[in-house]
Amino acid sequence: MTGFPDPTYAALAARFERFLPATLERIPPGLLREAVAHVLLGGGKRFRPVLCLAAAGIDPGAPPEDDGREPALFAAAALEWMHTYSLVHDDLPALDDDDWRRGRPTLHKKYGEATAILAGDALHAGALVLAAGAPCGSEQRAGLCALLAGASLAMVQGQMLDTIPLAMKGGTAGDAGPSVEGILEMIDGKTGAMIATSLRMGAVLAGTGNHPGWPAFGRLLGRCFQLRDDLLDVTGSLPELGKTPGKDARQDKSNLVSLTGVGDATAMLDQLRSQAYLVTDTLPGDRAFFRALVAYVVDRTA
Amino acid sequence: MTGFPDPTYAALAARFERFLPATLERIPPGLLREAVAHVLLGGGKRFRPVLCLAAAGIDPGAPPEDDGREPALFAAAALEWMHTYSLVHDDLPALDDDDWRRGRPTLHKKYGEATAILAGDALHAGALVLAAGAPCGSEQRAGLCALLAGASLAMVQGQMLDTIPLAMKGGTAGDAGPSVEGILEMIDGKTGAMIATSLRMGAVLAGTGNHPGWPAFGRLLGRCFQLRDDLLDVTGSLPELGKTPGKDARQDKSNLVSLTGVGDATAMLDQLRSQAYLVTDTLPGDRAFFRALVAYVVDRTA
Repeated sequence: MTGFPDPTYAALAARFERFLPATLERIPPGLLREAVAHVLLGGGKRFRPVLCLAAAGIDPGAPPEDDGREPALFAAAALEWMHTYSLVHDDLPALDDDDWRRGRPTLHKKYGEATAILAGDALHAGALVLAAGAPCGSEQRAGLCALLAGASLAMVQGQMLDTIPLAMKGGTAGDAGPSVEGILEMIDGKTGAMIATSLRMGAVLAGTGNHPGWPAFGRLLGRCFQLRDDLLDVTGSLPELGKTPGKDARQDKSNLVSLTGVGDATAMLDQLRSQAYLVTDTLPGDRAFFRALVAYVVDRTA
Repeated sequence: MTGFPDPTYAALAARFERFLPATLERIPPGLLREAVAHVLLGGGKRFRPVLCLAAAGIDPGAPPEDDGREPALFAAAALEWMHTYSLVHDDLPALDDDDWRRGRPTLHKKYGEATAILAGDALHAGALVLAAGAPCGSEQRAGLCALLAGASLAMVQGQMLDTIPLAMKGGTAGDAGPSVEGILEMIDGKTGAMIATSLRMGAVLAGTGNHPGWPAFGRLLGRCFQLRDDLLDVTGSLPELGKTPGKDARQDKSNLVSLTGVGDATAMLDQLRSQAYLVTDTLPGDRAFFRALVAYVVDRTA
């Protein structure tokens, strides 16, 4: 992970990359698997899987033969499948209409819209198949499914607020327009729920799933992540980001940067960073790593 | 249920209809919930929920205050949410491009394509939220999620075979074209998996989830259901069906009727009916009801 100051991130991400390709076997060989592989194995920060593996406290240096017995890897893969489904559907012409993702053509550009809709649906279903099939006790498997499905539903609500904000509020053209609170609610759904759930799914497997720090930390980390994304959308380039910058402005979408300006948004990001640091001090597990995560999310350039 | 010879069907469907509206509370008030309600509460045979409730052996005459404690109702609602998501996405312009469903405009005709994609995604996620939150033990909850997610994934594979049959097989324009076997494989995925899972989710709650009769009966019932649908697509009308007839022919889609003709398809349906009757004699639970189900599926006119 470029720019990430803690070697644990790279080690966890490497163990995840080793495990991920085998999860494609949930889909029989053919065009559907090929399309899913195109988008799932096309790189990415693997941010949500790493959060899950870190909260689960797994050993990044375990030998490959242990991978099939490690439930946190199933949970991490489930999160990446779910996250990837949301990217595929968000990129569709009827939604964000994007041509580039993770440095490659989006799924509908390469395989057509029908395959992109269905491949997204397959990733969505497969995520739950992976969570429900994790090699652990039924109490944990049921907990993983409940968390993942709940985050998926929250994510759709956030995407809906992002896509059709006035309609969601029952508003009309005469309404006051977007507010900081409204955008934060959208971020909490679209980004924060999955980030909080990534931590909590790992924590469930470590026996710390009910710790109140996880939802708070997840929400703050989600806000930092999205705010940084929105700043990069203004300042970044396609080769750097792997996706088209400047989309929100061209689509007349409001975000915290367009609403408050780069200066105020940067100040808000600093404030969120301080709050997130405070919460890391209450978390179970490797606090230094979670502090490094906050720094990485706030300072990253891609 | 028009034409269904057993009053149990109507009683189970009525208890399900009483329970279903409250499940919408999983989505906050707003356009997303409104769109989901449009398609979820718009009628329908409630075939999969009734299969689930029958296999669970619940009392159709229980008082309303028992509904919130009856896990089979959560499983049945989860199945209807999942089935409805698949209808919404299948109807999209990039897939079957249909304007009518259950006698009402399809979701994208009424609310636009973005909302239809997202409402489908919300139904998909919400289905798993309902299954994971059923009021029963964790072993059963995990089992319900595994079955439902597995059926959802199989359904996408079937839909993919239906939409892009040659591409799925890695075929070219010079290939021999569709076969009866290929179409049966598509039906088993697109229709049979969810029907078998509806029975098995109910059976899990009755403690008979591992009985080998359920997958066999589900597959046969799915084939009967789809073959009857394809015959109705040739002979039915929009007011009768609630959806546009003759779609497959206009879209140059192969099905068993177009491939073998109405006569041979009707003979195949008779044969499948006999096989299904034989399997009902091995099932746990109310065999007379399952026999009546077969008769209804084969003889229905809508």
